Amino acid sequence: MDQMHTHISRQFNAELEDIRSRVLQMGGLVEHQIEQALEALIKGNTEQGEAVIMNDTQVNKMEVTIDEECNQIIARRQPAASDLRLVVAVIKTITDLERIGDEAEKIARMAVRLAGEERPKNNYAEIQAVGQQVCHMVHDALDAFARLDIEAALRVAREDQQVDQKYDGAMRQLITYMMEDPRTISRMLNVIWAARALERIGDHARNICEYIIYLVKGKDVRHTSLDQVEKEILGR
Amino acid sequence: MDQMHTHISRQFNAELEDIRSRVLQMGGLVEHQIEQALEALIKGNTEQGEAVIMNDTQVNKMEVTIDEECNQIIARRQPAASDLRLVVAVIKTITDLERIGDEAEKIARMAVRLAGEERPKNNYAEIQAVGQQVCHMVHDALDAFARLDIEAALRVAREDQQVDQKYDGAMRQLITYMMEDPRTISRMLNVIWAARALERIGDHARNICEYIIYLVKGKDVRHTSLDQVEKEILGR
Repeated sequence: MDQMHTHISRQFNAELEDIRSRVLQMGGLVEHQIEQALEALIKGNTEQGEAVIMNDTQVNKMEVTIDEECNQIIARRQPAASDLRLVVAVIKTITDLERIGDEAEKIARMAVRLAGEERPKNNYAEIQAVGQQVCHMVHDALDAFARLDIEAALRVAREDQQVDQKYDGAMRQLITYMMEDPRTISRMLNVIWAARALERIGDHARNICEYIIYLVKGKDVRHTSLDQVEKEILGR
Repeated sequence: MDQMHTHISRQFNAELEDIRSRVLQMGGLVEHQIEQALEALIKGNTEQGEAVIMNDTQVNKMEVTIDEECNQIIARRQPAASDLRLVVAVIKTITDLERIGDEAEKIARMAVRLAGEERPKNNYAEIQAVGQQVCHMVHDALDAFARLDIEAALRVAREDQQVDQKYDGAMRQLITYMMEDPRTISRMLNVIWAARALERIGDHARNICEYIIYLVKGKDVRHTSLDQVEKEILGR
């Protein structure tokens, strides 16, 4: 009897491990999608942009599969406490990863649209600055998820403010270009959509960090200021 | 023993009923937020816009409370099959409702910014058209959720295409204004953000409809074309 119990719990642990590693796998693909979409935009590479658009179905499929697995785990294993929190955190994380994938796809669509147009002299320097930071955020959020590192999660969540600042700067710059040369308006709007998609990816990365804190500490920190979270969670 | 079992299952049903009605309550508040934000924009009413911004914390609190209740139900009741699907659908629905609330807040922020500026002659007619349809979508999606009506859910999900078309039309119109008079660019961008927020609300309403189909039919229909869903689910 005891042996059977150990056996079941070992299988259960393997299942939990499996959904965790699948999330990281999905996250890796999503990260790749953002990088490729940005490169397609900056290099004006239509094929690369189209590849990102194609691969989005892959991201979607992964979400559906992991979601299904989570539901089965809840139904079969009836997890409690931290196991349950892991499953719920995974369900939420993959929703945000899927949305990050959607944003990457949007950037790729803008890249394709812009590929045929005249390139700005600074080669989208504003977008590149936001893009790089956002890529790091997603990478570090997934890393914090893998190591269940709440200090890292808090650090990444905080970066979202910097992304927002860089985004605001980029927007001001782009509006100036539009005012200087109204013929660029419709082209610049595509650049603005891409910038906005990046800013949203930052929000989603922050969401993932909040799920990590919830998962580790059992505390819902959405809609709480990061200073307060730091005080309560890390006792600073 | 049997009596106790009946008692527990009655309590359990009451709990499931409770989260369902709380979702509808949260949905009602969110609907109100969209309507108020739109009115603030169209009438240039700063106070109304600020009320929407203030009330967003209310929406956020409701999400956290319902989420917590869902987690407790999973942990205590260990629901299976359709009960579990209900809880999972609720967890997902409130995430989308919270995001709709965020979009309403954004529209309200744009309303406040635009209140001091010159009003366009057509008084944002393009935005009004998208806004009305989106309000109906959210209302009808919540209605379909209340009645677990998958035919209605499918109908509402389909409306999202019309919203996207109206949004595209509004965008073209707004870009034309910007080109005609570049001094309006920065003002028009605020109008564009509001239009974009409405378009996103349509997406979230569609998501909710997909959860309803999943809840009733046990089938994940995200990333599936609506024609295919209709064929499979309704056997047409």
